[in-house]
Amino acid sequence: MPDSVIAEGLTRDVVASAAGASSARLREIYTKFVEHIHAFVRDVELTPEEWLAGIRFLTATGQKCDDVRQEFILLSDTLGISMLVDALAGREASAGTESSVLGPFFTTDAPDVERGASIATKPTGIPLDVTGSVRGPAGNALAGVAIEVWEVDGDGLYDVQYDGRTTPDCRGRVHTATDGTFAFAATLPVSYSIPGDGPVGEMLVALGRHTMRPAHLHFSLATPGYLPLTTAIYVDGDPYIESDAVFGVKPSLIGPYVAHEGPRYSLHRDFVLVPERARARA
Amino acid sequence: MPDSVIAEGLTRDVVASAAGASSARLREIYTKFVEHIHAFVRDVELTPEEWLAGIRFLTATGQKCDDVRQEFILLSDTLGISMLVDALAGREASAGTESSVLGPFFTTDAPDVERGASIATKPTGIPLDVTGSVRGPAGNALAGVAIEVWEVDGDGLYDVQYDGRTTPDCRGRVHTATDGTFAFAATLPVSYSIPGDGPVGEMLVALGRHTMRPAHLHFSLATPGYLPLTTAIYVDGDPYIESDAVFGVKPSLIGPYVAHEGPRYSLHRDFVLVPERARARA
Repeated sequence: MPDSVIAEGLTRDVVASAAGASSARLREIYTKFVEHIHAFVRDVELTPEEWLAGIRFLTATGQKCDDVRQEFILLSDTLGISMLVDALAGREASAGTESSVLGPFFTTDAPDVERGASIATKPTGIPLDVTGSVRGPAGNALAGVAIEVWEVDGDGLYDVQYDGRTTPDCRGRVHTATDGTFAFAATLPVSYSIPGDGPVGEMLVALGRHTMRPAHLHFSLATPGYLPLTTAIYVDGDPYIESDAVFGVKPSLIGPYVAHEGPRYSLHRDFVLVPERARARA
Repeated sequence: MPDSVIAEGLTRDVVASAAGASSARLREIYTKFVEHIHAFVRDVELTPEEWLAGIRFLTATGQKCDDVRQEFILLSDTLGISMLVDALAGREASAGTESSVLGPFFTTDAPDVERGASIATKPTGIPLDVTGSVRGPAGNALAGVAIEVWEVDGDGLYDVQYDGRTTPDCRGRVHTATDGTFAFAATLPVSYSIPGDGPVGEMLVALGRHTMRPAHLHFSLATPGYLPLTTAIYVDGDPYIESDAVFGVKPSLIGPYVAHEGPRYSLHRDFVLVPERARARA
């Protein structure tokens, strides 16, 4: 019997068991998941020993999660699943700035930052001046847009990665002025390793992959009437720009980070948001 | 752009990233898993909210696991994955007795049980006399075969489900005599609920499925030179025989459990093991 038809009746029985699912959408997701995961098991002729290794990997991944660590999001990120979900969600917004991963380091306690002030509270790294604007697809300035920005410090760590963190660092909330522009200071982002001390780090080592992300500054923009946008602007020429461990880089999201004397850098980026009505499916 | 080709380059990049994997087999499993899981995400157009629900479900499943609870095996069982892996592993052994799920309740501390003695240490349930034999495909008697047997007690619980368990109950190791026969006493198995107080139980409720397994007695047989066999013999006429929560029932593994006065039941089953050399692939 070819493997493709081994236990076909089993797959049918598992699918049929959800005939009474609480919603048609849940039943659809369950059905497709069962069909794809069974096809995977048949395709690779998964052995009982490999199955047990998979059970142990998933268990360890769940047990690595806590209040400040989400190993399953890291797994999703490193398998490109997060960026695929993002691509599917963003396909109506193609007139706007492209999106990128939120990542596991966003927090909700970023302070409001005055125009021109810095989000970095400690003197690590090279200073960076960020300016830009937020507009609609027709070029109309969007005033009062809340922009969350966050990044690693000059040592390559997010504030939440320090034990005993009491106040936010390298994160802030800025707003656009009436002409749609914004300005703040920060630290030139540096490339850094995603957490490598868990099951996902072990997986990447076994796969011959590295754990590095190219340097980037996170932006998350929201204003009434427009689709929210989560993205990041990557540093031109970073050694990991072509091999991001979480596949977040898109060509339109690279730089320009410009070097000045000091040293000091600057970045100027204009963002385009798409009105909410564009989300309606054809 | 049709969903089937959204972010095709992303899937290619994720696959290509494992070019340096530590083994060809790991790379094959990784590649097929990435391709199937990406195809699933595209097929159902998974939304960011649904993705997050999935992350939370997997995290809760991992965190429900402890020394005596394996929620990921339960998930695999209830999705039919365990029985599929079993079917693929067992396809060379088609001349022998069919297999069934090991389940999460096997332990390694079962006591040796004398011929005819009972594995039940407490007077719960209806007594059961079990007899049978173990043979090779040509009918040759196999002597000294170790048979692990385990089951729920008359209250529908495995010994490990009781807090403060100190000694095994309703489990034992019997051996075949020189003529290949064995005999022991037990308790008539009853149908029971798999653990329903975790994420898998919530999933089954949402899917409109029940958590019941039809009554059965577990057998795990091993002897040098033959493929090991893990199986179970299900009770004829059980109300859940057609809707086992973990899809373990096969027609060849049902009964016969025979009623006698008392009440007392008997079960006679002959098992056929397949020589190890039959495992070689064509």
